Amino acid sequence: MNLQNASTEELRQWEADLSNEYNSYCQQPIALDLTRGKPSADQLSLSDALDGSLKGNYLSANGTDTRNYGGLEGIKEARELGAEVLGVKLSEVFAQGNSSLTLMFHSMLIAKEFGLNIDDSTSAWKSSGETIKFICPVPGYDRHYTVCEKLGIEMITVPMTPTGPDMDAVEALIKADSQIKGMWCVPKYSNPTGTIYSDETVERIAKLGSIAGDNFCVFWDNAYAVHDLNGFKPLANIMEYCRTFGTENSVIQFASTSKISHAGSGVAFIASSESNLAAIKDALGVMTIGPDKVNQLRHSRLFPTFDSLIEHMNKHAELLKPRFSCVLEHLNNAFGDNDLGSWESADGGYFISFDAKPGLAKKIVKLAADAGVKLTPAGATFPYGNDPQDNNIRIAPSVPSLEEVDQAMKIFVTCVKLASVQQALEAA
Amino acid sequence: MNLQNASTEELRQWEADLSNEYNSYCQQPIALDLTRGKPSADQLSLSDALDGSLKGNYLSANGTDTRNYGGLEGIKEARELGAEVLGVKLSEVFAQGNSSLTLMFHSMLIAKEFGLNIDDSTSAWKSSGETIKFICPVPGYDRHYTVCEKLGIEMITVPMTPTGPDMDAVEALIKADSQIKGMWCVPKYSNPTGTIYSDETVERIAKLGSIAGDNFCVFWDNAYAVHDLNGFKPLANIMEYCRTFGTENSVIQFASTSKISHAGSGVAFIASSESNLAAIKDALGVMTIGPDKVNQLRHSRLFPTFDSLIEHMNKHAELLKPRFSCVLEHLNNAFGDNDLGSWESADGGYFISFDAKPGLAKKIVKLAADAGVKLTPAGATFPYGNDPQDNNIRIAPSVPSLEEVDQAMKIFVTCVKLASVQQALEAA
Repeated sequence: MNLQNASTEELRQWEADLSNEYNSYCQQPIALDLTRGKPSADQLSLSDALDGSLKGNYLSANGTDTRNYGGLEGIKEARELGAEVLGVKLSEVFAQGNSSLTLMFHSMLIAKEFGLNIDDSTSAWKSSGETIKFICPVPGYDRHYTVCEKLGIEMITVPMTPTGPDMDAVEALIKADSQIKGMWCVPKYSNPTGTIYSDETVERIAKLGSIAGDNFCVFWDNAYAVHDLNGFKPLANIMEYCRTFGTENSVIQFASTSKISHAGSGVAFIASSESNLAAIKDALGVMTIGPDKVNQLRHSRLFPTFDSLIEHMNKHAELLKPRFSCVLEHLNNAFGDNDLGSWESADGGYFISFDAKPGLAKKIVKLAADAGVKLTPAGATFPYGNDPQDNNIRIAPSVPSLEEVDQAMKIFVTCVKLASVQQALEAA
Repeated sequence: MNLQNASTEELRQWEADLSNEYNSYCQQPIALDLTRGKPSADQLSLSDALDGSLKGNYLSANGTDTRNYGGLEGIKEARELGAEVLGVKLSEVFAQGNSSLTLMFHSMLIAKEFGLNIDDSTSAWKSSGETIKFICPVPGYDRHYTVCEKLGIEMITVPMTPTGPDMDAVEALIKADSQIKGMWCVPKYSNPTGTIYSDETVERIAKLGSIAGDNFCVFWDNAYAVHDLNGFKPLANIMEYCRTFGTENSVIQFASTSKISHAGSGVAFIASSESNLAAIKDALGVMTIGPDKVNQLRHSRLFPTFDSLIEHMNKHAELLKPRFSCVLEHLNNAFGDNDLGSWESADGGYFISFDAKPGLAKKIVKLAADAGVKLTPAGATFPYGNDPQDNNIRIAPSVPSLEEVDQAMKIFVTCVKLASVQQALEAA
């Protein structure tokens, strides 16, 4: 299907055929959901041994009674797991409650209101009284944007490239404006493009702290650190680069077991310099008497080593891979030989990012919804919901069954084609 | 021992005897801790059936898969328990994660920064640009004060009375200053005095919203709602009073299972008007994808009814009561016939509040520490750590064994007597 060389006649015929096909879907009682990056029930069941894993022994390895209050940093064995996942020392990581998003919100709150330097309250981003700005590579993760928006932090976009954020653009922005206080990153299987940042990109990001204004801090959301579909793929260790450049305070890393064990009741990790962690601990100590150490212990018993974690993730991959393959096959068959859409074939993570022709994302999402296929709202992958090209759509195939993904993708592909043909006809 | 009528000779003799006794304690290898209101290991063991209580069934009563993301309000059965504990409708309560302190911090943050009226951003306390003030009945809970301090909210003290905060003082302050935006309350077994607010006090607090400035909000920390030592004692239902006065937006209630099940891994509750909860939910939705619903389900299985919860609390009382009795017996024996100290005999909660003679609290805490008995730092029960009389000491007897409480109280009583005699000698 090549729209550029098609005659109006051909376009009209295609439009008629596709409309027929689309209408036949609309008449069926379809209700499919490709919206959010959630594990399926089968994936969740992989960790059902969690409840009961303690067998009455609530003591951590060093004898801490996990049932009681206290222990703001998290138990040692959970921190050790976090240290391996994020590539830092034990003293550079805390294990916390069920949500890395909470840690990200708290970290941004702390950096803005209280400052990441515990000895210097002027390290608070708000202290200058000027607008605080943050760089957001796009497309990206909507919940990162809502954290910034809620805290009144202005977002500036830079494009994603196949090696990560466009670093020339990032460096130019940062050099020109000292009110840019940080950048969101999902460095491995970036949400939604699936990109793994190249070594050079990681190195340049680690260097940003030396060219940026005061108290610059990259929020490094390594949500998919071990979420490989085709074998473990490495990511350069940003903390090691930071040590080289003396910029250890300029990065806070996040991860969690949410898509490893039970999504809603996992353990989250935060890693940074000891200096940043001191400020974070000081604030956490105001907010809580400590994280749920019992649940941390459950996770440590289920995943006693990093290798056991990787083994567990291979089981996730077995369940996820056919769904991703199905999406990619549909996209290849429909758009492999034309320019109606482009995408990246992710080796991990939870998403496939699809770019339709400019101006069509909202229309495609609407068409799919009317045919019973829910997609993430168009624009959600951009700050303020504003996709200037209106062409990016995030596909999340993890929750539906393989048959459902297949059915949903048939409809999705039809919607993309139909919208594209109609657009071409309007221009003809 | 009556210091007022004693001769200098008698005082010198007492001082010598007490010093001997005190020094003999100092030479023993004593390490006792009466600092924090934590459950003992025996109490924690009452809930050890929690882990494994799900027996592979992770579905809540309405079929929600608790393992996955979502469900910001908490699962229905957990909310039902919270609604009974706090005396509100199901629609007026959320069940959340492991810490009511976190909910209090978040609520204060939301009220200050975002506003409790979701349709009116000027409802944020900060919007006037003036100093935000909060009333703190004293003595009170140190962690309430640190929340205010961290968020830059000025604290104004009012004295506690045997029926709750001095309401004449509270009302006068509020009428005179519209920048007073709320008040901390621990209405049942107040920390540390053990007071249960009288019905009249509760009624007058519910009415404050009608005499205060805009967006006034009482933070009602009902931490000890079911923590009775001598049978269930009722507390007037503040929400019912609020309905009478049309002040439902002026109270946010908090509770948790932290001192019911496992202290560090419980379920916390927040209750307020549906309007306030809408604003809180909006902000929670930025901070997290949802609370740990699996742990909520564990709690609901362990406590299927309010009656089963009360039965469980009776087992706590059996373990706690001898420790409290031991403290009271020592205090009675030592100070029942003189004015060296006064205290209230709590029927529940976790503390006994002891008032020494003015000017002696710091000295007594230091003497006890040097003899191996750790007490909560003097001043901790007052904002900014400043006890103007320097006479209040909080005793927390739950963690040590009965023998240890007995030993610690022997030493404590000696320290109080010694400090008092030395003070009298200096004045003589």
